[in-house]
Amino acid sequence: MMSGETNTADAASVKALTFDVFGTITDWRGTLIREGKDFGIRKKLTVDWARFADAWRAGYAPSTRRVNERELPWKNIDALHRIILEDLLQRFGITGLEERDKEYLNRIWHRLDPWPDVSSGLQRLRRHFLVAPLSNGNVGLLVDLARHAGIHWDCVLSSELVKRYKPDPEPYLYAAELLGLHPEQVMMVAAHNTDLDAARSVGFRTAFIYRTDEYGPGQSSDLAPNPSVDFAASDLNDLADRLIL
Amino acid sequence: MMSGETNTADAASVKALTFDVFGTITDWRGTLIREGKDFGIRKKLTVDWARFADAWRAGYAPSTRRVNERELPWKNIDALHRIILEDLLQRFGITGLEERDKEYLNRIWHRLDPWPDVSSGLQRLRRHFLVAPLSNGNVGLLVDLARHAGIHWDCVLSSELVKRYKPDPEPYLYAAELLGLHPEQVMMVAAHNTDLDAARSVGFRTAFIYRTDEYGPGQSSDLAPNPSVDFAASDLNDLADRLIL
Repeated sequence: MMSGETNTADAASVKALTFDVFGTITDWRGTLIREGKDFGIRKKLTVDWARFADAWRAGYAPSTRRVNERELPWKNIDALHRIILEDLLQRFGITGLEERDKEYLNRIWHRLDPWPDVSSGLQRLRRHFLVAPLSNGNVGLLVDLARHAGIHWDCVLSSELVKRYKPDPEPYLYAAELLGLHPEQVMMVAAHNTDLDAARSVGFRTAFIYRTDEYGPGQSSDLAPNPSVDFAASDLNDLADRLIL
Repeated sequence: MMSGETNTADAASVKALTFDVFGTITDWRGTLIREGKDFGIRKKLTVDWARFADAWRAGYAPSTRRVNERELPWKNIDALHRIILEDLLQRFGITGLEERDKEYLNRIWHRLDPWPDVSSGLQRLRRHFLVAPLSNGNVGLLVDLARHAGIHWDCVLSSELVKRYKPDPEPYLYAAELLGLHPEQVMMVAAHNTDLDAARSVGFRTAFIYRTDEYGPGQSSDLAPNPSVDFAASDLNDLADRLIL
């Protein structure tokens, strides 16, 4: 992290904040476990939903990497989540689900709950900056999430628009282009160093948010920011305190 | 227009409303005249700003057509507005402007005022439908406009995303794809029959809004909807009355 003086100068030239969504804005793990348990009671299933949630999420990075490396043709996150789900249902011995049940499960990703600081923090940040998700989630998913969480984005930016997933450079560069801004006028806000490293490599400013519970009690990665980030904040309200002087 | 019974069935399957912006949501002519007059007083210019506004807008359709017919490489609306502006400054004998003055004028399109019914009408419609602009304006322009007008879109859809302008089919089809909807689940809302005809030709539902003052007192086009539109409404509140039962 830079010194306080440098940060102040940085923040003054920033016009837009772009946010990672899965993990930074939303508690995917808590929501998947809660929804899974409810679903399991209704369907009389015995499943370790924490393990199920972790396994579903674990399938995500390899899938997006296969698309970026062109081993898979372009598929949006809804489609990738569904492919992973089919495999998980087998592995967890869940049988007899109808198509509408599977679609109901897959759509949990459209109704993830936000972390408690998101609503108030984003409202404060939006008074001073353009705010937009910059997510690997598809546009339709992000729209549903925002309505579910009561979030007011200025626009919805997604890897879907370039058919390449973060951390490839294209989603970041296209986001800045669409906003009519230079990369250094945009700050990526994320709980993941990989995302911030990629954003910084194309010229974005970066802010790390501590989400040390994202992966549950055993989380071992992204417990602290890489030293190169411009800001680090405990949550979005703390980020507003640091950026808005 | 279809009968009331048919309209009710249509509206029930519609999930998203996409809106034309220049003319349907915003009063571009009134804003250009008001801002032009203010600018003229500050710069001591004698200009007929109504004629200037009309000439600026008249340059728009031919420019977008040249892009669609590939006579011009892709340029977004900010760039096309600027090209037209340079020509107008010559034709209206306006000399001695600095670069920042020209940019100030070009950015009037980023701060167009909404029609008086837009804020309340969109709020009502948004409770029942996804709402998004589907405009030839570039994303950055649409984001600025929404902030200026206090509009809360669910996402920002623009011809810029496909580098083809309405009324070509691509912007409509891509809008439905990004929302994860079939074309018949989307309703285009516009004050212009050309826009609605194009939307209907790819399967969208359509709603005509009467904006008979858009082009000023001498308006001769788009005074009434083509018979093929699904709905016609005097403004967005009237549309909400018709769609929300």
